[in-house]
Amino acid sequence: MSMHDVNRPICIIGLGLIGGSLLRDLEYRDQEVFGYNRSTSAARSAIKQGYDVSDDLDTVLRRAEERGALIVVAVPMHAVGEILDRIVELAPSCGITDVVSVKTHVLDMIRERGLESRYVGGHPMAGTSESGWENSRRDLFHRAAWAITFDYAQELDARGERVPQSWIDVFTDVTKMAKLTSAEVVPVRVEAHDGAVARVSHLPHVFAEVLAVVGDNGGILAQSLSAGSFKDSTRVASTDPDLVRQMLEPNAPALVDALDEALALLQETREKLASAHPDVSELTDAGFRARTRLEARSGARKESVSPVKISSRPVIRLHVGAPRWVAQLRQAESLGGRIDVF
Amino acid sequence: MSMHDVNRPICIIGLGLIGGSLLRDLEYRDQEVFGYNRSTSAARSAIKQGYDVSDDLDTVLRRAEERGALIVVAVPMHAVGEILDRIVELAPSCGITDVVSVKTHVLDMIRERGLESRYVGGHPMAGTSESGWENSRRDLFHRAAWAITFDYAQELDARGERVPQSWIDVFTDVTKMAKLTSAEVVPVRVEAHDGAVARVSHLPHVFAEVLAVVGDNGGILAQSLSAGSFKDSTRVASTDPDLVRQMLEPNAPALVDALDEALALLQETREKLASAHPDVSELTDAGFRARTRLEARSGARKESVSPVKISSRPVIRLHVGAPRWVAQLRQAESLGGRIDVF
Repeated sequence: MSMHDVNRPICIIGLGLIGGSLLRDLEYRDQEVFGYNRSTSAARSAIKQGYDVSDDLDTVLRRAEERGALIVVAVPMHAVGEILDRIVELAPSCGITDVVSVKTHVLDMIRERGLESRYVGGHPMAGTSESGWENSRRDLFHRAAWAITFDYAQELDARGERVPQSWIDVFTDVTKMAKLTSAEVVPVRVEAHDGAVARVSHLPHVFAEVLAVVGDNGGILAQSLSAGSFKDSTRVASTDPDLVRQMLEPNAPALVDALDEALALLQETREKLASAHPDVSELTDAGFRARTRLEARSGARKESVSPVKISSRPVIRLHVGAPRWVAQLRQAESLGGRIDVF
Repeated sequence: MSMHDVNRPICIIGLGLIGGSLLRDLEYRDQEVFGYNRSTSAARSAIKQGYDVSDDLDTVLRRAEERGALIVVAVPMHAVGEILDRIVELAPSCGITDVVSVKTHVLDMIRERGLESRYVGGHPMAGTSESGWENSRRDLFHRAAWAITFDYAQELDARGERVPQSWIDVFTDVTKMAKLTSAEVVPVRVEAHDGAVARVSHLPHVFAEVLAVVGDNGGILAQSLSAGSFKDSTRVASTDPDLVRQMLEPNAPALVDALDEALALLQETREKLASAHPDVSELTDAGFRARTRLEARSGARKESVSPVKISSRPVIRLHVGAPRWVAQLRQAESLGGRIDVF
């Protein structure tokens, strides 16, 4: 076990695209990991591939409790409450994280059950339009942002109270787990997270669905004439529609805000196009500048010629639990920075 | 010269991404081709690479006239009128095509100058977010739809008049030229073309600009958390904003129609999200079905395991100029089908 390993076994509940890919990465890195999948056939397929997987939730959770595992909740939003109830009953002392794309709603469920002191929320910003164990793969999270929430520590810090060591240990282990997948850990509070992903993930999903429908309304001629711009901009519309609902609906308040911003811009553009002298230069200039900034700031730098890509996210080195460490988390959040813990 | 070669030299006016890539393809296929670029440095670069290129428009057009070339107008929309004026003066007997993304406006300019009988509009549905000669490359049009307009033939046909052989020859040569680039030729009238591209190309550009702006409004945290869905859906916002304007503004009427459809869907989705029980299942189901149909119908089939990809566009074999050939063009248009001429 190296210094990068997580100091306890990891138990993944739900082995779809995200949970399954995490299981593969952790196993590959020799991290002790086991998991549960509701689907018997998917569980069997995973066992055949040599993974420590079961379709019996209670047994898996009891084992997590016995081994003091860190539990990763990796089921769709609608199933999270039920899983948390089982954890309360069968794994009452385990640390908990999750990989669900909307964090406010999960934190509400955590609070309802009094689990805040052993919960650190997570959300890896990676995925494909496919889903399920059969599409999971190693290296899905490579260089992706892995958002990790710290609302509990922030609340205690604001009241001048000390963050308990047990929560610090969960935070440290979730961070290490994410790093084992080569993701970049970005600390963020749930409200800031949900507002940001409404803009950069959930709104793009809504737009992709709408574009697909409007394109399809043009019939087979429009489909035949569609090229790269249409395919790219509608790609995520091929995601399982139920999974898309599980992202959009729980984040409705933040998504409505983002959508209202977008609607104002679209309405303005519509009026300009409908005028006697159409001029959309304001939109095209603003969009171009925004996209240029995005390229400069997100993930690995494209222009790097070195085979070792350099992340453009600033790095904050953090001594977890040391004085002012929560202030450092806030600073990292404000910069979209990644953290290194030691 | 094989049966696939065009029976006259090809003269390309404007060697940006599209014109430059066409020049490279045609030269590679041993088609006689020469061209003009306004930029002296880009023209020099092309000459150094062995291409027959000049930055002197008048000389190039006089040579086109002497050689009976087919002229391809490959400049941005705002420069088309000026180029057509020079063609009227210096190349009064050449056949003309173009590669501009909006066809109604070009056809208006053609009609103003009385050039209908020697004009066949074109629009290759290919591109990248880059522009200029330096980004042009071979095989840009491989398997892309290359829309070719036939309004002139349709009008004569509707009046029971014969389409002149000279126009038929231009139509045949434009078709052959497109096929030399491995594109798939889709016949379409200008109004149907502009309506379709408003849906599948221009609206995606507007959406990409808006998404880039709304994402950017989330600051560097949102940029840091953005992943594949955001990058794909904003990719075309990195296109030169002036080139985007040259596409959107001349197609304003059709784009407003597509935008109004999209706005109605977005507004409905916004109300559903803002309700007490957010439910966007109608949108996600419709988007998923639309996207699935698109995948089945556009371009090469993804699921094909054969290295020789099969186009999913139906093929209409056409004896150009034979009885009912214009009716066959209308049929191909209604199916988004590609044509083979002989």
